[in-house]
Order: sequence, then structure tokens, then C-alpha cells
Amino acid sequence: MSTDNIRVSILGATGYGGVELLRWLLPHPNVTITAVSSESSAGMPLEAVHPQLTGMGLTLSHACDAQAIGDPQVVFFALPNGETMKIAPQLVERGVKVIDLGADFRLKNQSVYEKFYKMQHTCPKLLSEAVYGLPELYRDEIINAQIIGNPGCYPTSILLATVPLLKAKVIKPTGIIADSKSGVSGAGRTALKTPYLYAEANEDFCAYGIGTHRHTPEIEQQMTGVGVGEAVITFTPHLVPMTRGIHSTIYAELAKDLTAADLIEILTETYKDSPFVKVLDENHLPHTKWCSGSNNAFITARVDERTGRAVLCSAIDNLGKGMASQAIQNMNLMFGLDETAGLNRVSVFP
Amino acid sequence: MSTDNIRVSILGATGYGGVELLRWLLPHPNVTITAVSSESSAGMPLEAVHPQLTGMGLTLSHACDAQAIGDPQVVFFALPNGETMKIAPQLVERGVKVIDLGADFRLKNQSVYEKFYKMQHTCPKLLSEAVYGLPELYRDEIINAQIIGNPGCYPTSILLATVPLLKAKVIKPTGIIADSKSGVSGAGRTALKTPYLYAEANEDFCAYGIGTHRHTPEIEQQMTGVGVGEAVITFTPHLVPMTRGIHSTIYAELAKDLTAADLIEILTETYKDSPFVKVLDENHLPHTKWCSGSNNAFITARVDERTGRAVLCSAIDNLGKGMASQAIQNMNLMFGLDETAGLNRVSVFP
Amino acid sequence: MSTDNIRVSILGATGYGGVELLRWLLPHPNVTITAVSSESSAGMPLEAVHPQLTGMGLTLSHACDAQAIGDPQVVFFALPNGETMKIAPQLVERGVKVIDLGADFRLKNQSVYEKFYKMQHTCPKLLSEAVYGLPELYRDEIINAQIIGNPGCYPTSILLATVPLLKAKVIKPTGIIADSKSGVSGAGRTALKTPYLYAEANEDFCAYGIGTHRHTPEIEQQMTGVGVGEAVITFTPHLVPMTRGIHSTIYAELAKDLTAADLIEILTETYKDSPFVKVLDENHLPHTKWCSGSNNAFITARVDERTGRAVLCSAIDNLGKGMASQAIQNMNLMFGLDETAGLNRVSVFP
Amino acid sequence: MSTDNIRVSILGATGYGGVELLRWLLPHPNVTITAVSSESSAGMPLEAVHPQLTGMGLTLSHACDAQAIGDPQVVFFALPNGETMKIAPQLVERGVKVIDLGADFRLKNQSVYEKFYKMQHTCPKLLSEAVYGLPELYRDEIINAQIIGNPGCYPTSILLATVPLLKAKVIKPTGIIADSKSGVSGAGRTALKTPYLYAEANEDFCAYGIGTHRHTPEIEQQMTGVGVGEAVITFTPHLVPMTRGIHSTIYAELAKDLTAADLIEILTETYKDSPFVKVLDENHLPHTKWCSGSNNAFITARVDERTGRAVLCSAIDNLGKGMASQAIQNMNLMFGLDETAGLNRVSVFP
Repeated sequence: MSTDNIRVSILGATGYGGVELLRWLLPHPNVTITAVSSESSAGMPLEAVHPQLTGMGLTLSHACDAQAIGDPQVVFFALPNGETMKIAPQLVERGVKVIDLGADFRLKNQSVYEKFYKMQHTCPKLLSEAVYGLPELYRDEIINAQIIGNPGCYPTSILLATVPLLKAKVIKPTGIIADSKSGVSGAGRTALKTPYLYAEANEDFCAYGIGTHRHTPEIEQQMTGVGVGEAVITFTPHLVPMTRGIHSTIYAELAKDLTAADLIEILTETYKDSPFVKVLDENHLPHTKWCSGSNNAFITARVDERTGRAVLCSAIDNLGKGMASQAIQNMNLMFGLDETAGLNRVSVFP
Repeated sequence: MSTDNIRVSILGATGYGGVELLRWLLPHPNVTITAVSSESSAGMPLEAVHPQLTGMGLTLSHACDAQAIGDPQVVFFALPNGETMKIAPQLVERGVKVIDLGADFRLKNQSVYEKFYKMQHTCPKLLSEAVYGLPELYRDEIINAQIIGNPGCYPTSILLATVPLLKAKVIKPTGIIADSKSGVSGAGRTALKTPYLYAEANEDFCAYGIGTHRHTPEIEQQMTGVGVGEAVITFTPHLVPMTRGIHSTIYAELAKDLTAADLIEILTETYKDSPFVKVLDENHLPHTKWCSGSNNAFITARVDERTGRAVLCSAIDNLGKGMASQAIQNMNLMFGLDETAGLNRVSVFP
Repeated sequence: MSTDNIRVSILGATGYGGVELLRWLLPHPNVTITAVSSESSAGMPLEAVHPQLTGMGLTLSHACDAQAIGDPQVVFFALPNGETMKIAPQLVERGVKVIDLGADFRLKNQSVYEKFYKMQHTCPKLLSEAVYGLPELYRDEIINAQIIGNPGCYPTSILLATVPLLKAKVIKPTGIIADSKSGVSGAGRTALKTPYLYAEANEDFCAYGIGTHRHTPEIEQQMTGVGVGEAVITFTPHLVPMTRGIHSTIYAELAKDLTAADLIEILTETYKDSPFVKVLDENHLPHTKWCSGSNNAFITARVDERTGRAVLCSAIDNLGKGMASQAIQNMNLMFGLDETAGLNRVSVFP
Repeated sequence: MSTDNIRVSILGATGYGGVELLRWLLPHPNVTITAVSSESSAGMPLEAVHPQLTGMGLTLSHACDAQAIGDPQVVFFALPNGETMKIAPQLVERGVKVIDLGADFRLKNQSVYEKFYKMQHTCPKLLSEAVYGLPELYRDEIINAQIIGNPGCYPTSILLATVPLLKAKVIKPTGIIADSKSGVSGAGRTALKTPYLYAEANEDFCAYGIGTHRHTPEIEQQMTGVGVGEAVITFTPHLVPMTRGIHSTIYAELAKDLTAADLIEILTETYKDSPFVKVLDENHLPHTKWCSGSNNAFITARVDERTGRAVLCSAIDNLGKGMASQAIQNMNLMFGLDETAGLNRVSVFP
């Protein structure tokens, strides 16, 4: 690695987000990892917790130990919600860039954060400064950002399919229904709860958090931000017996009398310079497997002519484009690299 | 088994529907199996095709061989669509009762059948005579039926949750969206297509047949039949990486300003004498695993207050309540048995 | 249920063993359940812990509450190892029959128990009285037993295939290798450990406990008990990404120059009156799916002619024949019922 | 890509082997893909068959069309057994290097090939010239090879763990038992057979091909080639309900009185310069998930002291180190690249 490599630290390196960051960053041609932290395993070699990472020569430090996290240019936070806002401000002050994989800097409205995340936001000042890290929507702002709120997995899958159509005023911002389905890794590694045991989640499918999921205000904030009216959505997340992947099926009222081909054309035009968003034609629907292990998103649109509704489908890897590789896409933009640096991988298929 | 046992034949005994019928009928206290057929394996012992059924002493015959199918009082058809209508009429004429697990006798409208199933219906006369075999809705008609069109798996899961609310005029018949998710066994055993290979379907989730699925007119026929207005629905089926189970999430406009508790009360009251439908309270959402291997359906309702929408959830075993055990529930009713005879099993959990 | 029904209590009714007992016992024609216990959920209705059992009308009691467990004729213990020996003696003294799904009464040798289970055995007197509950080997002793040590899941799968061949002196008792593979439900429901999370166990296969698994002395005790020499085995358990099922592949030196057909004949003859053991011919190998949800075991034998080794294959449902339904088979024998009462079910396939 | 890139063609690009080659070769820094072939889909864009590869701009050609396959320096054959030997000779003659992912050039003995693969070998001359492409054993020969027989997936997993111990004369070459377990992708994409359907393979575990699997002579040839005696093994493959991964548990008689630590030391020393083989210590056993999507192999050893047996465990990704990425490792060596070029990826975890 050249001496010009970006110096990167990862806080919370042993959860699924942290491990996925490492999978992408270790072979990234422009990155040097200066520190990896884990509160529960500080002092141990990384491979003691994750033997699949044997031979990387990394030792886990404490997240809050300013010494231990080295002298990074950018810090990825893969910590529980509420932790990033404790540490990030001092880093931002020092001129270190911050990319938060959690929710602390996604919402602009402090009280909405506090209502949905059930804790006080201790760093509201940075909320306005933080940029929402969905590069396909905010590329220019990200390039100049100091702090990024990396989007939630569900919002990423839903916004990529809907925002271009809202901007084009071809679907209405009210009445949108997002029926989303996620693999179990979304629950994280430390979530030692009965429903996430193999014997319980395997061969099971269920909805959860109807009407209360924390990603709801995040999605509505972004949809409303398009400027075509206030978005009030119905969002239903479900648990799928698979490790990775999110699929969203989104129902929206058409604002104009258009065909599937028309909607697909708008999506195609929108993403013609976005290498990670693949717009499928009328003969193909997205499969989560096509995204697995990659930073790719597959989206398409259909029209239910009998009801005048658009039906949009979207698939991503919840830990990839829905989390870690999207965070790295943000880093690439923030450091003037090609957006695809280190991210040019197709899915692990089958 | 007593000499008073019902004499039963199964046509198409080696597919998933047929095997599931056998799982329930072999230990059924009031049934004697007189014949099992399989076109592809006629002449072979059943256990040559299905070694898990070793020791049952059954030999496979040809479906169309009137001799071979014995002298049944009732015949279950687990044949491809279009086959039942060729054979059923002569049986009905002989006074044999017919329960068709396929689609030939589900739709009242011949032209709708022909449009969606892409073949001519050769026995339209029986369409009007056939009873739609959803016992919770048509118990009285089933008791006296000569021929039953056993419901599709998706319609069963959707109708159980919606019809009581339509009847109570608390949800509107227009604008209903049914977002359904099915295990892969729904594709059947003879469907040797790449998407159903383990390596393709495992760790994958996708939608299919948007706007074109054959169960759409079946659902609309039943909803419209409630008599509160013509139902036009949006139905999206999806494939889940699991063997058994269907979960439907259904979105409907409230016709009155009601709470989840109100909707749950209507469902509870509707099904208070229906032993197989379990209505869950506001603290529980259905899991397909809770139904697996049983004839049980779990349903509940929520209200998204911000949008005035009811969100209904429903889970069944697609091969159980969605197919074979529901067919046996129909048989029980047709022969004056207790509705639960031979069907009193809880799910295989975990 | 008749007044002559057997009065049954289940201690530890909310774990996988307890729930599986309930699945079989609830519809059992000769059983009345008098009590179900759970330390963690005592006082709650069963369906609060297991909504799939909604409508059974059972309330959970404390295990040790003599009042609460009713007036049973037989008590099934589905408790952690070490718990049964605290409670069972008083029940035995009262004339109540005891069937322990755990390990407290499987081993005859107290010191071996204490070495492998790392706790003192507080009730050694009952060790000699207890009968090893493998009906195919100890049917006569079980009929008259007061207390049953229900076999471990791995031992059941291994002993059914090997003991008849040891008895016939066609394989040698030394040098046997049992390479066994189990579904994840074997870890139990309360085992909230990272390796049993869906995201970790799914798409993974590994060995564990090489040379140290507690089932090793249980298997050797039974093999040695055949009387053809002391058995010293190599036993390697593995974890398979599936919920239910155990498959054992067993390698043994032939003591005589025999063919696969010869071995299969011995097995067939041995089990000709054992309805739950299905011996497969030379054209079929056992599949765990063929056992799932049933009390059936499938076994067969092959001979590797180049090395003079027998290769035996065996499949069961670890929670069925490997645990709960085998316990009920024991109960049937102990109470003079037909061995198959309430157990006549084929596997849930697919 | 630089003009110095290696020009690569892939014959059979749409099967799992071909797609996996593409996953690794597309971002490989030293490779230009000149042609991809598929008999069944020739003329179509690659993404018509594999939409997950959308945007790669590749069109499928006929394998045998010398024009169509471009002007490659190396050709990867991912064709059915028997096809490579028809085309490879002319390429070798033209000076093009050949890497066969199939079995045509793995066995030195023509008659053994013909017996196990049930077809005539039409190109026996090249058998002696071909190098067995297991880089950890044949690095020097591979560097100078013109044609490579890329190892089978099972043999790779077994040989990596056993050959160093055979060479060190600490285990005996006779009496080795390899009990191997493979994910379902090993059956390939075109294998449209009932046992590979999701609903059949899911939640199932079985052995197959006992005593007859084609990889048996390949393993014995390599073990015997060590020169410490003729190896005769017992090899039992099994099917695991997962997409990727092979785990082998290998039982061998110790030739010396050694401990697990001794064996691990030999393995560690052997692979100290082999970056893809990770030797685990006495506290860790290999997991297939640790290899998934990578070229890594994890191995370790234990000693069953009571029986004097070594128990070796080995895990790889059957499509990675067991197939495509190993083939690329060979290519790297053949073209003077660093062995790890383009292969430095950790597993996709979880």
C-alpha cells in the first residue's frame, strides 16, 4: 500500500457491520487500517474473535481510547445507536472525517430521533452538518462532508426505487406502502434473542414492528425532502430465513397515466452514471441473491393497470449496499477517489 | 379401521399435494385408502417413489383406470390444472364425491378460467355446482356438496383475514393490496426448473408474477361475493427460501375509524367456532413456523393510524391449510364427521 | 378422552423436548395431560410462551411443586442434566413412573457420569434400577421399568445400526468410528450462544467436541453390553444447517467376509417386528427428511470391499426417535399399550 | 487494464464454475477476458443468462468456435467431463495454456479414468504432461505447466490435510477414512434432478455414492504419490443443506505416538509459505462459513488418544479453493504473477 493511503479506523469491528467493513477495506487499494476496536474484546487479536480473519495481524483496541485508535483520517462507526454521538464530535473537531453506520446522524429532526430511538440526542449541533450518505442522491454533498449518517438498510432499498419517481412527479408522495423483507443478519451479532436462533428463524417468515419501525421517519424525511409534498408511508418489515439480503416491494399511486416502460426509463436515466444501481427491464425482477456480497442494487418498476398503482421492486445486500460497502462508497467520494474504488465486485452467486 | 370407514382414492399421489394427503389420511381414524395413482410411476409400489412411506403397502395405479381406482366414495384430485375436469364429471355422475386440489373448479366464470389458465374449460356445467372449499366461509354448502374446488394456497391465507372485515363493512373492497410470501414447495415436485434448485432458491428472495398470478381472480371472486362492492386487488406473490409456509401482509383502507382491537374482535367473533383459525392479539404477529405441518391458520390485524389503513397478517402451511389438510377438512364436513377428525395436530415446532 | 387415560405430567414443557412431547401427547388417544411445568414461565399460560399451542388451555407450573404437577402416573422430565435426579427419586418412591429425556439415568457407571457431566450424581441407587429406553433393544425390560433413561439422540442413531451387527458378530467392537451430523435444534432453546444464531449456523458446517462428547460413554456402554468385547469408539459430532435430523455414518471392521446384502438381511431380520425401524435395501440410503416429525429411523449397510469395512448409515429426527417420540414409545410399553399408540405418523415431507 | 494483461477465455461460462471464475477474473488486476462461451446460450449477452452480471458487456460464444474464443493466452475449461479433452489438445499445440476445472486431466492412469468416468479418454498423451493443479503440493511443476488438471473439490479438502502428515510419515497410508460433506452447488447448475430441488434438499442430510464416487481414485493417486505406500481409502460424500462449502473429517492411523499439537506443528510448518491455507490451533475447528466466497482453506488435527487415531478436519469453499479460485491461483503461478494476485479476499461472513 502506498504511503498516500487513507488512514482508516473502525470502531466496533467485531459485529457484522465491522466485519463487513473489514472484508471490503482489507483489500481496498487506497486504504490503510490503523485501528480496529471492540469494547468486549479489547486487547485480543482480531482473529481470536473472528478466526476467518486469521493472518490479518490486527489487534482490537478500546473505542474510546484516543491513543489506541491511531491517527486516522476517517473513522467508521459500527457501534450501537447512541454511542457514535458521544465520540464523533471530538473527532470532527480534530478534522477527522466520520462515517456512522448507525442512526445517530441520519435524522435532521432531533425530537423525531429522540421519539423513535428512545434516548436523548447529545449532539444536535452536528445533525444539521451531517450529510445523508446515499451517494446516488447526495453525491455532491458527500464529497464535501465532514460527517456522514450512513443510511439504514431498509431506507436504502426503498429510496433508490422511489425517489427518482417522486422527483419526476409520476408517483404521489402520500399513500406509499413499503413492504420490506430482510435476512436475519440485520439483527446483528450481539442480539442473542430466541427469535434469532437458527432453529426458530429457519423455515419461518413473519412481520415485525408494524407501524413502529425506526426506519419509518428516516424514509419519510428523505421522501418529503424531494419537495413534492409531505410523505406519509406505511412500512412493514419482515424477517426472511436467509442470512443476507433485503427486498422491498413498494406500492405507490401513479400521478400520471404511465406504463412500466415509462417508469423504467425514468429510473434508467436517473442512474445512468451510478455504477452500483442496476435497473432491470420488464422481463426481470430483482433477486437478493444477485446482490449478495456486492455493493449492487437491483430495481425495477411495474404498473398494475387495473388499479393505477406502481409496483416497485428493489433488492440489495443489507450488509453491503445497505450498510458497509455503501459506507465505503461514501469514503471514496469524501477522499476524491473513484466512487467504485475497491468496490468492483459482482455478487457471490450462487 | 372400521368397515364404516370412508373409501378414499387419491389421484396424483406422488406430488407434494398427494404425499401430504397421505400423511394426513393414512392415520385418519375414519378413512380407508382404496387407491393411489401416479401417471409417471403407475405399477410401482408407492415406496419406490417415496421411501419415507415405506411399509404402507400401497401400489400406484393409473389415474384414468376406473378399475384401478377402486370403488371410492370420495376422490381427491392432486393433478395438474386441466386434468381434473376430464375425469371428475363421470365420477360425479356415479355419485362419487370429488375434491379437487387444483384450480379447475374454483372459478365460477368460465371465461376468466380460460383467460388465466390458458386452456378451454371442458366441463363448465359443473362450475356452478362446485362449492368453494373454504370451510370457514362455506361450511353449510360444503356439507351438501358433491364437488369441491379446494382453494388456492394464497387465496386461503388472504381470504381468512379479509372476508370477515369486508362482511363487517369495516374495510373497503377496493384498493386492497395483498403482499404474499410462499415457501418453495408451492412450485411442486415436478417443476424441475433452475429457479427451484436449492443453490438458486436458497439465500434468495424475489417477487414473481406481478399482476398476472392466477390466484388473483380467485381472490377477487370471493371478495366480490361478499356483496359489499366489486373487489379489485393488487396481488404480489414472492418466493421465500423455506420449504413450507405462506405469509400474507394485506393492506386495506378502513371504512370506519376503528382500532386494531376492534378489528381483532371482529375476527375473533367470526372464528369463535372455527377450531383451525387462531386470531392473535395485539402483542403477537403470525409466524409461518407456528402452522408448519398443521391445518392451523394464524391471523391478526393492526391499524396504521397515520394513514387510516388496516394491516392484516396471516400465516398458514401452504401444503396444509393451503392445500391437503383443508381438503380433508372439507371431506370431514361432506361425510358428517367432526370437522377436526384426523386433523388435530399442532405444528412441528421448531 | 376416556377416564382410563394415562395421567401424564411434563417437567420442562417449554424447551424443544417439552414442546415436542406435547405435539405427540396432546392428540395421543390414551393420554391426559395433568400438568406442564416451566421454571422460567411458571404461572403463565403455555400459549404465552408458545403461541403455536394456542387453545390448549394449559398453564405452566413449577417443576418442584408436588401439588402443581397433579397426580400423574408418569412424569416426563425434559430438564437440564442434573435436575431430574433431584426430583425423580421421590416420584419413584410414590410409584410414579419416570421417563427422563436427559442423561441422568442413561449411564450405569456413576464415576463415568460424573467425569463426563462434571457434577456429582446424587441418586446412584436408581442408576442400576433404571432401564435404557431404546425399545428395539430393551423392549422386555422397558415393559416392567419404573424409571427410564431415554437415550441420547446420537446414541439412538448409532446403536440402531450397529448393535444387531455386533450381536451377530459380523462387525468388530473395536475400532468403530461414528461420524454423526445433527441439526441445530439439538442445542436446545435456551442455548442463547452466538454459534446457534441463524446468521452463524446457516450456510455453515463444522465438527465440535471431538473426543469429548458426552454421548461417547453412553454409546460404548451399550456396545460393550452386547457382550462381544469392549467397545472403544471414535465419535465425531457435527452441526448441520438444518433444524431437525441426525445422520450417522458408521465405519466398522468386518469380522466376517460378508456383503452389503448380508448385513442388510441381518438388520431386516432384527427389526422385522419393530415398526419404527425401516431397513433400506442396496438401492437406497437414508435421508433425514424421511424421518422429520416422525418416530421412524431409516438404516442400511454397505461394504467397502477394497478395505473390508462396513459402512452403516442411519437417519432419525433428533427430537423424535432421538428424543420425545421415543420417550412416548417407552411410555406405551410401560403402560401395556400398543407400542405404536399415538405414534403412527409418517414424516412431514417435504 | 494494462496492455500486458493476460488474455483469458472461459469455456462454459454460465455454469457455477464459470460464473465463479468470472466473479474472480472480472476484477483481477492482471486479466483481460477475451471470450466467454456457453453452448446452450451462444449468441446471447451474458447478462441474459445471469442478470447479476449486468453491465459487464460480455457476449456468449460457442466453445468450439476457434474464432469466437478470441486469441487467449490461457483457457479455463468449465465444461462437462469429456468435453475438455476434445478441444484442449489443439490449444496446447498452439501454445495456449489450459486449465481444466473438470476431471479429464486429473488422473494419470487412463484406464482408471475410463472405469470411473465411463467414457474413453481420447487424449491419453496429454495425461502425462498435465500437472495436478494443487499449488500447495505442486507449485514448481505448475509454474512450468502447459496444461493443468484442476483438482476436484473433495480431493482438495482431503489432500491439504493429509499429504503433509503422510510425507512426514506420522499417519499410515492405509485405512484412511474420509467422511466429506458438501453444499448442494457441487451438483452444478444444469443438474435439474428432483434431489437438488430446494424443497427436497432443504432440511435434509444424506450420504451418496458410497464406495463409488469418482474422486476416490484421484485422492488415492495423490496419496500414493507421496511415496510412503499405496493408499486405499474409504471415501463417503454427503449432501449438506447449504449452497457452498465442503467439510472433510478424516480418520487415519497414527504411525507414531504423537499429540494434536505435534500434528498441528507439522501442518503449520508445511504451509508457512502458503497464504491460503490456515492451520487452526487446538482451540478451533474449521467452519465452512469461514471460507465462503474466498480461496482460503482451514485445517487442523486432533488425536483420539484412546484409539490412536488422528482426526483431521478441513473446510473450503467448494466453488472457491475447491474449484474456480484455485484455478486462478494456478494461472497466477503459470504466468509469473504473485500467487495471491486478485485472490486476496476474506470470506463473506456471515
